Formats: sequence, C-alpha cells, structure tokens
Amino acid sequence: MTNTIANATLASVSETNRSRIMQHLYQHGISSRAQIAKALDLTPAAITKITAKLIEAGAIKETGDFEGRKNRRSIGLTLDTAEFHVIAVKFARSLVQLGVFDLAGKPLTVQELPQVTEDTIDSAIMQLHDTIGSLIEADRRIIAIGMAVPGPYLRSVGRTAVVSSMRGWQKVNFIHEFSNAFTVPVFVEQDARAGAMAQYLFDPTITTENLAYYLVGEGVGLGVIDHGNIINGALGAATEIGHVSIDINGKPCDCGNVGCLERYCSTPAIHEMILKEDDLIADAGTMTHLQACRALFALARGGDKRAIALIKRVARYVGFGCITIFNSFNPSQIVIGDIVAEAGQLLLDEVHKVIDKHVIHELNDTTAITLSALPADAALNGAAAVAINQFLDHPPQFFELS
Amino acid sequence: MTNTIANATLASVSETNRSRIMQHLYQHGISSRAQIAKALDLTPAAITKITAKLIEAGAIKETGDFEGRKNRRSIGLTLDTAEFHVIAVKFARSLVQLGVFDLAGKPLTVQELPQVTEDTIDSAIMQLHDTIGSLIEADRRIIAIGMAVPGPYLRSVGRTAVVSSMRGWQKVNFIHEFSNAFTVPVFVEQDARAGAMAQYLFDPTITTENLAYYLVGEGVGLGVIDHGNIINGALGAATEIGHVSIDINGKPCDCGNVGCLERYCSTPAIHEMILKEDDLIADAGTMTHLQACRALFALARGGDKRAIALIKRVARYVGFGCITIFNSFNPSQIVIGDIVAEAGQLLLDEVHKVIDKHVIHELNDTTAITLSALPADAALNGAAAVAINQFLDHPPQFFELS
Ligand SMILES: [Zn+2]
Ligand SMILES: [Zn+2]
Repeated sequence: MTNTIANATLASVSETNRSRIMQHLYQHGISSRAQIAKALDLTPAAITKITAKLIEAGAIKETGDFEGRKNRRSIGLTLDTAEFHVIAVKFARSLVQLGVFDLAGKPLTVQELPQVTEDTIDSAIMQLHDTIGSLIEADRRIIAIGMAVPGPYLRSVGRTAVVSSMRGWQKVNFIHEFSNAFTVPVFVEQDARAGAMAQYLFDPTITTENLAYYLVGEGVGLGVIDHGNIINGALGAATEIGHVSIDINGKPCDCGNVGCLERYCSTPAIHEMILKEDDLIADAGTMTHLQACRALFALARGGDKRAIALIKRVARYVGFGCITIFNSFNPSQIVIGDIVAEAGQLLLDEVHKVIDKHVIHELNDTTAITLSALPADAALNGAAAVAINQFLDHPPQFFELS
Repeated sequence: MTNTIANATLASVSETNRSRIMQHLYQHGISSRAQIAKALDLTPAAITKITAKLIEAGAIKETGDFEGRKNRRSIGLTLDTAEFHVIAVKFARSLVQLGVFDLAGKPLTVQELPQVTEDTIDSAIMQLHDTIGSLIEADRRIIAIGMAVPGPYLRSVGRTAVVSSMRGWQKVNFIHEFSNAFTVPVFVEQDARAGAMAQYLFDPTITTENLAYYLVGEGVGLGVIDHGNIINGALGAATEIGHVSIDINGKPCDCGNVGCLERYCSTPAIHEMILKEDDLIADAGTMTHLQACRALFALARGGDKRAIALIKRVARYVGFGCITIFNSFNPSQIVIGDIVAEAGQLLLDEVHKVIDKHVIHELNDTTAITLSALPADAALNGAAAVAINQFLDHPPQFFELS
C-alpha cells in the first residue's frame, strides 16, 4: 500500500520516471524500450523522451540489436555497471578504509589509512582529502563518493552523536568537511543503513522489500528497508537498535540510556566477557576487540566448551536484539553481519532458539534470519551502495539533464 | 530523500498524480488549477486532464469564481469534506464502537454495541453486519468503512495475533468477514497506526512528516510516520512497541516475550499496581481497568500523594517507552494518547524527566512530546482516518475512473 501520507514527499514525476528507468536497467540488465515501458507502466512516448535525454547525458547507451522476447531482435538499452566507479569510505574508531567500486558493487581497489588516534584525526582527514583527490584524478570513471559512519549519525546535521567508539570524531562535521571538497558529490550515511543498502543492491539472493541489516560488531546498528523505503527518522537517527534498552535496570551506556543492547553483544562487550574467563585466551588483555573475538571464534570452532558457552551467551543477547527487530520493524529477512556474524552457525542456532521461544509464531514463520554473504566489513560495500543508490535515484546530480 | 529503493513500489504515475491532487484539495481547501499545478509541479495540461476525470466521477467539483492570488478571480476546485461520509469501527476486548464521520474527521454519530464476551463474539459480528448495513442504507454519502483493531494485527493475513486483550477475537478473520460484506469498501488497520493517521489528518497543529502516535491504554501500541511513510512491516505488524522488551529478565507476556512494555504501563498493569496499594481505591477490585485508572487520576488531581507517586512510577515506564521510540524511530513529535494520557501534565512532566536523563540531547532537543488533542478513544477517529486516507490515495476504489 502506498499511503496518502507518502505522496507529500514525492519527487516530481519526470524525476521519478527517470529514476525508475535507471533502476530498471540496473536491476534487469539490457532491456528494450518496449520492455521498460511494459514493466514500468509508462507510455512508449514517455520512455522515448526520457531515454533520449539519458543517452544524450551519457548515463545509459544503446547496445545495438539484442535478442528480445519472442525472438524478435530489437535495440537494447544498457546501464553499463563497469563504466561508472564510486569511491567508498568507511570510518570506524581507529580505522579508515577506502575502496573504489564499480556500479555492480565489485571492489576494484581497497586501502587503509594509517591507524587513527584521538590526536591524529585532523591529519587523517587531510590525508583522506589527498587520497580521494588522487583517486579521482587517476580514474575519470569515478562519479561519486559514499561514506559510512557509525551511528547515531545525525544525517541532517552531518555529525555523529555521543558514542564512545567515535568520541574523537564527534567534532568532525562530515557534510562541511567533505560535501564540496571534490569534483564529484559526496553522500554520508550511518553504517548499518549503508549495509542494508549493500545487501539490497549487491546480494542477488535478497529479493525482499522488507529487509533488516543487523550490524553486530564494534558497535551494534541496524538499517531497515520497509516496503522499499529506508527508515531514516527525522534527523537520520532512526533504527539505532544498539541504544535500545533490553534492561532498564542494566548497564549504563555513553548515550545516557541504560541496558543498551550494544553493551551486551558488541565486540568490546565480548572482549570484556573474555577477560573475565580466566585463561580462556591467554593474551586477550593485549589484543584488540577484533583479535580477541576472532580468537574466541577459532577456539569454539576447535570444540572448546567454554568458548562455545560464551558465544551462546552472546548469541542470547543477539537473539533478544532480533526480537526487538521483529516487534519494531517486522521485516521478512534479518541479515546479521559484521564481526560477530563470523561466529557462524553456532551463533545463528542459538539466536533461533531465543527467537523460537519469544516471538509470536506468525512472525517467526515468515521471517528468515541469515548471516551476511558480503565480507565482514560490509559497511565499506555499504558506502559504495550509498553512492550508487544516489546515482540511480537522482541522475541530475551527476549529469547535465534538462 | 527518496531512495532508489522506494520507487519499486510506486503506483503508476497517473494514479499518483490523481492522488496528489486529491490530497492537495483535502489539505489546502479550494484551489485553482494553476495553484495546484504550481504546488505539485505538474503541467497545466496534466491538471486539466486529471481534474476533468475527477469532476466527471464526482470526487471533486468546481466552485465557480473564488478570489485567487493577486486578486484575480478564477474558477476554484474543491473536495467537499461534508459531502462524503465514512463509517468507523473500533474493536477492543469487550467494546465495539461505531461512528459516522465526515471527511474532515468530524463525528456525526457514535454508538456502542452491547458489551461483548468471549461467548457473544459471533452474535456481535452479526449485529455489526446489520448495524453497518443499516447505516449505509440510511446515508448515501457513506463511501467507505475503516476498522481499527488492537495490534499485533497481521494486516496481510487479516487476523490479530496472540494477545490477551483480543483472545476471543483471534479466530475472526477481519478481511474474510467484512471485506466483501457491504456495498462500500472496508479497510482494517492496527489501532495505534490508525491513531497516527488520525493525528496526522485531523489535528491541524501537527505539521511534521515524522510523527509517532504512542497509544497507552488497555494495550500499548505505536504508529509511526517516517518522512511521510507509514511504517508497516512485512505483515503489517511493525511498531508493536507494547511487545518490545524493556527488561529481558522481566515479566512474561502472552506474546511469548519477557519484559514487554505493555506489562508495565497498560491499564491492566496499572490496575494491578493499584490493587497492591492497600485502600488506595477502596472498590478497585470490582472496577474495570478503565474505571480504576480514572479513579487513580482523579485522586492524583485531588493531591493524593500515593496516587501521585503511583502515576510517577507508571510515567517512568511510559518514558522508557519513549526512549525506545527515540532510538528506534527518531520522530520529530511523539503524541501520547489513549486512557493513560488522561493522567495529564503530571505524567508528561515525569516522562520528560526520564527522557532528559536517558536520551542523547540532539534527539531530545528536536523532538516534541505532547498529549493527544483528540478524544481518548482516538482509535475510533483513527478508523475514520484509515478510510479517508484510502479515499484520498486510491480514488478508483470509490469511483469509476478511467
Ligand atoms: Zn546506548
Ligand atoms: Zn508481549
């Protein structure tokens, strides 16, 4: 159902149709004008007019004859996903990753900036400007930059809000810093929401319009697509599941709330649990959160009973997070991703046990829980997806289009 | 931002434009074709074509000359909100209310069916068929029926899910029962979501596109409008805040979850708290939940310290619900409605205290918390809003439109 309420924010009709044609070509590959007209319920005249403009602008092109339906040969249109590149940037506490992706989400190059500390943020940003500038100069196909930052990200403001893992970054206004810095446009998004876009655009097995991407890593985040719409919130700070309380008598969190989910199943929380288990991982005290978690998962794969038990405890919290997602967002599919998803089937089985017990069966029966098929650092893919999404949705930001 | 992802579910363009014109006339009153064209960024030719069809179908009409901008007189178009009526039905456990509303949300008549028990549901449904049938026969202006039912309502199935307050109703499939029973179409929606639509359509002071209606009554529910889109979930069971846990070590709930918000601040929960306070309300044991709560609120207004303290305890839970709403949905306004909102400023002040302590200030500073200005049984208004929303959004369901 499209709601009345929905239409107030619609783009103009011609923009909408242009975007729908771009999306159709992106999702379905080479198509004839007649096929597009039929799929989108547009008149042939409208298709001819809009595609002429897109061809003139260089966004799409004709492929010459291709085999259409009923074996009739006709002229195809294509949006060549290899012809356009985007730069993706992923910010975490101490890690800034950069990648160049093609429009299909294939990474062409990936690099990391040197480890960032609270004191080196300014120089990291300078280096980022330089690196991005060089990448754009070297590759004329680059059309946009997408950035993924940990939530809560106040998108309409341009800043992340008080969260320990990004404390040093809070003074950075991403919009002011980057939006006019390059010859191509920059788009910034919360990392889990970017991850949801990546799952939706790049994983061919995901076909639902009701998708939740549940990021369980150094932070805990969520991105939700509901009937094809990304849930944003007024400032862009919706779906911050990491700061939804699972226990109003629980542990305090930097956000001001108590019992935040993030305090129980993020990698820092797991690291803390590991340190309380004497001798489970001998040198856990000197490890990063990522290293400690990966050591734990390796132990469990080797059959270590205490490691398995600890992962089950973590999975219970991850499962309660799923239950909140069920009751808050009722998606058809929850994809669990990022570092903690590396615990694999053991985690997933335990999550299912918690869900089976605590969710009404109608929701349980109609919702798939899967582990992300994208790399653990899907937020980098997500940053690429954010840029690609804008390219498909608002082509005039990228081309001269009358 | 409209997302790429959003456009896959768009209605055809002509339908969308038709609906936008209907909405414009509904929201702005008498308008000239030129004013509509300008506001909606449509060509005069498109406006002329679409409005001609709407006039022919009887959905809108010309008003003759009216004073346009710049003092030029021109022909106005109007959607006469008094000319169309809808029937609204609100289901609760033992109470079925019916009203006839005009398109502006003004109630013309309201009635109740006799109290319904588990054993009389079948006869209540028969009586409802008869009553609705008679209303339609007596009033040719009635164009649709909206129904509001407690959540979790599985809209795509047509049934409510396991919840104690509707246990007897669970066997009723509202879609099978009513959708083809009358000469006008029937639309069923979860009560809090219907309440959100009512706030949005009928309260002129509400102008945000990011609205949460937080129903705290016999159940606890939520309806959220995000950037103009109602959040539905795959089955229509999203935003079931009443069954989001605030304490994973807390009280068990009929839904299978533990620590559900509904177990702490619904009227049955408050009634239970009242009964534990010796002699606070002498005959509380024989009262309904509604009566007990209203007696409590009256005591508090009279200055009774124990009553005030109890309401503050309730308000703390209501406040934690708000915090979950902030972090899950980031609305610009949360409207608290239904029975518990009758506790008034005392409740609201305490809710603010909890929020001030536990929500990041950027969200707190940009979100208004208000008490509903609609009657306590806003779900009845909501049922009307559901039908009106459909009328504006999908006029072909109501008229012969080519
Ligand atoms: Zn928190
Ligand atoms: Zn529950």
